[in-house]
Amino acid sequence: MGKALVTDLYELNMAASFLRRDMKERATYSLFVRRLPTNRGFLVAAGLEDCLSYLESFAFAEEDLAWLRGAGFPAQSVEQFADLRFTGDVEAVPEGRVVFANEPILEVTAPIAEAQLVETYLLNQITYQSALATKATRCRLAAGDIELIDFSLRRTHGTEAGMAVARVSAIAGFAATSNVEAARRFGLVPSGTMAHSYIEAFSSEEEAFSAFAEDFPGHTTFLVDTYDTLAGVDAAIEVIRTLGLSEGLAVRLDSGDLAELARLTRERLDAAGLPDVRIVVSGGLDEYDLAGFREAAAPIDAAGVGTRMGVSADAPYLDSAYKLVDIGGRPVCKLSEGKATLPGAKQVWRHLPDRDLLATSEEPGPPGAEALLVPVMRSGRRLSPSDAIGACRERLDRDLEALTPAALDLHSPSAPEVIVSERLTRLSEEVATRLLGRRRPAPPGGREHS
Amino acid sequence: MGKALVTDLYELNMAASFLRRDMKERATYSLFVRRLPTNRGFLVAAGLEDCLSYLESFAFAEEDLAWLRGAGFPAQSVEQFADLRFTGDVEAVPEGRVVFANEPILEVTAPIAEAQLVETYLLNQITYQSALATKATRCRLAAGDIELIDFSLRRTHGTEAGMAVARVSAIAGFAATSNVEAARRFGLVPSGTMAHSYIEAFSSEEEAFSAFAEDFPGHTTFLVDTYDTLAGVDAAIEVIRTLGLSEGLAVRLDSGDLAELARLTRERLDAAGLPDVRIVVSGGLDEYDLAGFREAAAPIDAAGVGTRMGVSADAPYLDSAYKLVDIGGRPVCKLSEGKATLPGAKQVWRHLPDRDLLATSEEPGPPGAEALLVPVMRSGRRLSPSDAIGACRERLDRDLEALTPAALDLHSPSAPEVIVSERLTRLSEEVATRLLGRRRPAPPGGREHS
Repeated sequence: MGKALVTDLYELNMAASFLRRDMKERATYSLFVRRLPTNRGFLVAAGLEDCLSYLESFAFAEEDLAWLRGAGFPAQSVEQFADLRFTGDVEAVPEGRVVFANEPILEVTAPIAEAQLVETYLLNQITYQSALATKATRCRLAAGDIELIDFSLRRTHGTEAGMAVARVSAIAGFAATSNVEAARRFGLVPSGTMAHSYIEAFSSEEEAFSAFAEDFPGHTTFLVDTYDTLAGVDAAIEVIRTLGLSEGLAVRLDSGDLAELARLTRERLDAAGLPDVRIVVSGGLDEYDLAGFREAAAPIDAAGVGTRMGVSADAPYLDSAYKLVDIGGRPVCKLSEGKATLPGAKQVWRHLPDRDLLATSEEPGPPGAEALLVPVMRSGRRLSPSDAIGACRERLDRDLEALTPAALDLHSPSAPEVIVSERLTRLSEEVATRLLGRRRPAPPGGREHS
Repeated sequence: MGKALVTDLYELNMAASFLRRDMKERATYSLFVRRLPTNRGFLVAAGLEDCLSYLESFAFAEEDLAWLRGAGFPAQSVEQFADLRFTGDVEAVPEGRVVFANEPILEVTAPIAEAQLVETYLLNQITYQSALATKATRCRLAAGDIELIDFSLRRTHGTEAGMAVARVSAIAGFAATSNVEAARRFGLVPSGTMAHSYIEAFSSEEEAFSAFAEDFPGHTTFLVDTYDTLAGVDAAIEVIRTLGLSEGLAVRLDSGDLAELARLTRERLDAAGLPDVRIVVSGGLDEYDLAGFREAAAPIDAAGVGTRMGVSADAPYLDSAYKLVDIGGRPVCKLSEGKATLPGAKQVWRHLPDRDLLATSEEPGPPGAEALLVPVMRSGRRLSPSDAIGACRERLDRDLEALTPAALDLHSPSAPEVIVSERLTRLSEEVATRLLGRRRPAPPGGREHS
């Protein structure tokens, strides 16, 4: 089974119609986010890697074709699908870069049937991975020196999403992940200790702690809140002393007032002469909790961040779109109420911290400005190997450093304004006039359009 | 690559420790949702099918073992993992049934290492699929006679989630899905027409509509809002007349005030003698929009419901847990602040609409009550083939009919109270006393526990 059927039926319908009519014009589609969620001052581009792999291997498998035939799809179209590959070009914003509303994250130029067929998958991957990368970045920004560990796998929307979260949170600067398969696949640091069930499986906390320390020497984190957090800390201290443990030790707090319990735990550990035993916290944390720990100067060394990051709980989707902007050299757009788009292939010029310039792809950028969209695929082939996660992280770090405090604000962020170039503004007006001019004017919802 | 590494590292650590220590007691773990999201009056159980497939095929692949060895995992444990299969028993609430907070959706009983290893995957699947099934059910309840189509694939958290949404929305009563692969995989009705880009690829709406009607006769939906909705309706009427089309016709509205535009569209279609042309709406819809259409008595025949359902936008996760409740016949629980659990294997007895009874697995149910947890797996083998989607849908329909209006309320729902049986209450107290009694009492956060 290939991925060609992992799409909306209308993509197949439209592509079939284009092919049947021998419409082979090269079309450009632009993938962008219409509006940022209210509580986001920036987005982090992600998902490109999976998009490029998909495009490079795009093909209908024999069983896909057989199913389409059986489902009554026109035989001629099924035959035309058989040989179809993605042969187009892609410009994209590299993963880890900061982007804003209306800035193309991806532009696909290909024979129209090909460019249309890949819409659903590209939208899916860029939308959710960028949403999750953005959330992870907010957590990282809020956490300051607290080391972060991705704990999200158990409540992501499926395991595919779990893998993506581990990867994009590493781009965001997380130090490790609990997700073993993601660690294997992406070369991340796996991290994990014990659950409450482990403690309960022994007849006492001390017994459980001793057993674990014996089985995993050198990296032992004691989960101390199964029954009573501070008593658990005392039990851990006792086991550390009894067994003479000294390296790679931590306690994990997973419930209650974590900042306060961390302070009390630190006191006990220090009083016991164990200043090197680290304190890890977890339990439904997000960027607001992490910021709270910093404000309270809680002595927390690391935090496991799970569910709320892993589903981007306060903004689980982005208002993304994949829109035809040019066909055969003719710029087009839609004028739908509240969903109008800008025509033509574009470039985004960055001269942060002030603002970005959204321009036609043909005009030169302002002096000193950097082009965000770069060529990543030509004639269906990637132009370079996959980006290392470290390279994406460095890009993100640089972009974050240049961001305005308003965009970085955790609670009421506002994104820098994206300026539309004069030439793009003029082009939009021309195209709108052309499109409205050539069709009967009609009253939408009772009002007359000019 | 198997799925055995699709887990949190701590599961491997704990399982390794249990195996190394020859701890082979049978343990029971209970999977439940601690609290319902504020805007939910019930949950719909889903995800069991994928859990059972996973458990039946659970095994470490050779490459998984090789990776663990290379990553420094204890050699003895890697060897013990090689032969490990899931040999346990599972009781579960069948998919499509309505459940509430604290009611086990799944109980796993197996040698403790096995039962522990499968935690992450089971939690992942039950949590997100139940969250999405619940959201889809709310949409269906709100929509009344409006036919619903799943349009979510482009913005779900990955394509795995996209497949699950298509399936659980079919359980909820959706009539069709835009997701072709899901239609293939689950035998659903695929549905789809054209996007705005199709219209834009032609020199006029009329030309695009004519081409599509010619290529897809008998099931033609015209997307009318690319430039101006009502002018688009007029264009569709003209094409229908010119080509003499008569069957399987619809127009789709995707922007603007959909209820109002539907009314104006209906008027025009009726005035043109086309009362059989259906009206389909789409565009960021959720259960609140659907309820609004009904209140406005908008003449809408079908609605495409996408993103907000596909990520359960207002409640994208559930506060789920997988907790050890019994080990070797010894009931256990955790007492963590705000996260205390009830010990022992359980049964849920339903005598709706009043309430459910949460009881120990050993006591008899109230007269006439129905047991929600049923045996689904013994010694690692499923007891029956996969449930048909239709069977799940019937279960859901029956449960919804029996639900209280308060639970069904869209805006401020409240779930019926789940009663804890006297015997389970007594058992909880006994276990808590035993656990607290055998360990040093200590002041948590400064307060003394008795």
